[in-house]
Amino acid sequence: MWGVLVVNIILSIMGYSVILNIVPKFKDMFVKAHLSGVDLNKKNKPELPEATGVITSCIFLIVMFIFIPFPFSKHFFNKEWGFPHQEFVQFMAALLSICCMVLLGFADDVLNLKWRHKLLLPTVASLPLLMVYYTNFNSTTIIIPKPLRFLLGHDLDLSALYYVYMGMLAVFCTNAINIYAGVNGLEVGQSVVIAASLILFNVIELNGDCWTNHLFSLYFMIPFFFTSFALYHLNKYPARVFVGDTFCYFSGMTVAVVAILGHFSKTALLFFIPQIANFIFSLPQLFHILPCPRHRLPRLNQDTGCLDPSVFPFKEKSLNSLGRLVLKVYQMLGLIKVERTDKDKELSTGTNCTLINLALKVVGPTHEKNLAAYLLALQVVCSMLAFVIRYPLASLFYDC
Amino acid sequence: MWGVLVVNIILSIMGYSVILNIVPKFKDMFVKAHLSGVDLNKKNKPELPEATGVITSCIFLIVMFIFIPFPFSKHFFNKEWGFPHQEFVQFMAALLSICCMVLLGFADDVLNLKWRHKLLLPTVASLPLLMVYYTNFNSTTIIIPKPLRFLLGHDLDLSALYYVYMGMLAVFCTNAINIYAGVNGLEVGQSVVIAASLILFNVIELNGDCWTNHLFSLYFMIPFFFTSFALYHLNKYPARVFVGDTFCYFSGMTVAVVAILGHFSKTALLFFIPQIANFIFSLPQLFHILPCPRHRLPRLNQDTGCLDPSVFPFKEKSLNSLGRLVLKVYQMLGLIKVERTDKDKELSTGTNCTLINLALKVVGPTHEKNLAAYLLALQVVCSMLAFVIRYPLASLFYDC
Repeated sequence: MWGVLVVNIILSIMGYSVILNIVPKFKDMFVKAHLSGVDLNKKNKPELPEATGVITSCIFLIVMFIFIPFPFSKHFFNKEWGFPHQEFVQFMAALLSICCMVLLGFADDVLNLKWRHKLLLPTVASLPLLMVYYTNFNSTTIIIPKPLRFLLGHDLDLSALYYVYMGMLAVFCTNAINIYAGVNGLEVGQSVVIAASLILFNVIELNGDCWTNHLFSLYFMIPFFFTSFALYHLNKYPARVFVGDTFCYFSGMTVAVVAILGHFSKTALLFFIPQIANFIFSLPQLFHILPCPRHRLPRLNQDTGCLDPSVFPFKEKSLNSLGRLVLKVYQMLGLIKVERTDKDKELSTGTNCTLINLALKVVGPTHEKNLAAYLLALQVVCSMLAFVIRYPLASLFYDC
Repeated sequence: MWGVLVVNIILSIMGYSVILNIVPKFKDMFVKAHLSGVDLNKKNKPELPEATGVITSCIFLIVMFIFIPFPFSKHFFNKEWGFPHQEFVQFMAALLSICCMVLLGFADDVLNLKWRHKLLLPTVASLPLLMVYYTNFNSTTIIIPKPLRFLLGHDLDLSALYYVYMGMLAVFCTNAINIYAGVNGLEVGQSVVIAASLILFNVIELNGDCWTNHLFSLYFMIPFFFTSFALYHLNKYPARVFVGDTFCYFSGMTVAVVAILGHFSKTALLFFIPQIANFIFSLPQLFHILPCPRHRLPRLNQDTGCLDPSVFPFKEKSLNSLGRLVLKVYQMLGLIKVERTDKDKELSTGTNCTLINLALKVVGPTHEKNLAAYLLALQVVCSMLAFVIRYPLASLFYDC
């Protein structure tokens, strides 16, 4: 086991250095292909290559392709043991789902797909995964937390609903990372923290009963960590490249894949606390209960060089009653700041409902570099909280 | 078996009609993303969406994802039989290789990858396939044709070389289709004919000993045939869309996948006679023994509305001795036409070394629609020849 993990780490480090080397070289190719975007939060508004996550994902896939024979090497040399096709198919299905997702992410970056594609396609891409889950495990029973057992019993078989849940997990992970973005280094940085947290969790669980699942997860998470970390160096402030939807999709799907096949989807979601918070906070805008501008990323104050929260303009009259209620609740909780514009007494502005804008509201105007650092620190703190929930606290709710 | 095939055909026909419906709708999205090209052989030089093969490939993948549970349905209902993971992994690996190839093809269309990527990447994409071949079959012995047996014996174990051969098969199929292009409908048309030929071959072989391999191939070839045929309607003269490298890569890999996992790579290659001829004929230009212009497609004669062969300019002095030899041999065989240009006595032109230009040299100036029809008729005739070689003739060389 340890030998195979060492090979995995070595290949991952090679992937890391390949990415650091080749991504900058592809820059012109991306710009020439009109795959570039303007970094709005810089004074000189540089044009950066977009969707470079596709290179990271391809290197990740290549690392995995080269790695796969190693966990099975003992079976190659000793034919009598019988080849574990059941384990092998998990690798194939996992990589198939990830590869599909990279393809869709890249297509999205190039073609700007519609929202319905963004929800439909991750579902389709997770089909091979669910099929393998069905053939290999098909365990759809969940253990009920102790306080609810008087109502629901010890466990509950969700059967088909469990597959819906897993399919939605893939959709959620990909989109949750995608909408928690807008500051240099944040998309990749959060993925790196999530990957590191999952690696730590898997290593702890290597001593448990389900160690094979966690070993399987490590085989994916270590290369994912290193390849993402390489991209982080290029995407952190001041960004030299943008990672694109490709990276967010790739990242979300890779986590969803190990969470599903490793049977720890609940724990995996614990490492998404900021993303879940951001998603719930964003819902009124995503569902157009409050107006939602095309871009919600913070805006640069040209004089101070710091970022201010971005706002959405609205007329209180034109909001429906639900919109007014949400606005009031958000204001009461101090989540958004509403101001009347001077020119027009009817027109107000509210800060956009994202964690990034909330952070700016709390700490005041901040330099982009520091804002990214704060948000990543929040991600780390939330991961630590997740470990507290997973280990000491979970024993209150479950018999583990 | 027949029930599953019927499901496969129904899903394929659904894929066919979905493609006919949605590809035209994506047109603006592609043009807006700068994924478009000018149809040089039309008088009005229309701008057409490029790389629409990516939609076909995605629909193919979705059809396959939805289809996969059906061949295994009896195992779902009767758990005692034990699930055939070994067969299941073949589906996963095949789709993984195809999906990788679509990703690379689309990346090529968008980014214009370099030649080294075009050779390296199909090799990498075929790794999962070779791994499954190793674990499931690992048969690397070839039967020697009767006339050579006195020299080499009855059979020969190629061991590692056989894997090199299979890896090269994927590279060859993808690139062979890619370079036999330049006339509306030809890339897709040839793929449709190859798919139809393979379907016929598989159906004949369903009565043989290896019927499971041929059934597996049919599961892929039927959806491939229908999705390609839908694209053919949109790409045939006058083309409404271009299919892009994406389609050629997808097409070549899909054929390579079934040829490798179905154990009929030699027969599959028989259906590539025009592609092989075109490839060999092109070699002097591909290896720059003769000058190779960026585009070798035939050119429109604005007055007649017909296509003339395109030419490459050269000075006899600047060719090396090998180049001069090749030129002389090609001229002697009547494969190319060399002319002195009037202006400069030193400068000559030769028709480009592709089957398309050769066809124009043989039949004279031809309308694009007719040229495509002739070339597709040639493909059909070569497929018929392939069946003659495979069945009556092969018995002279093999004991089958």
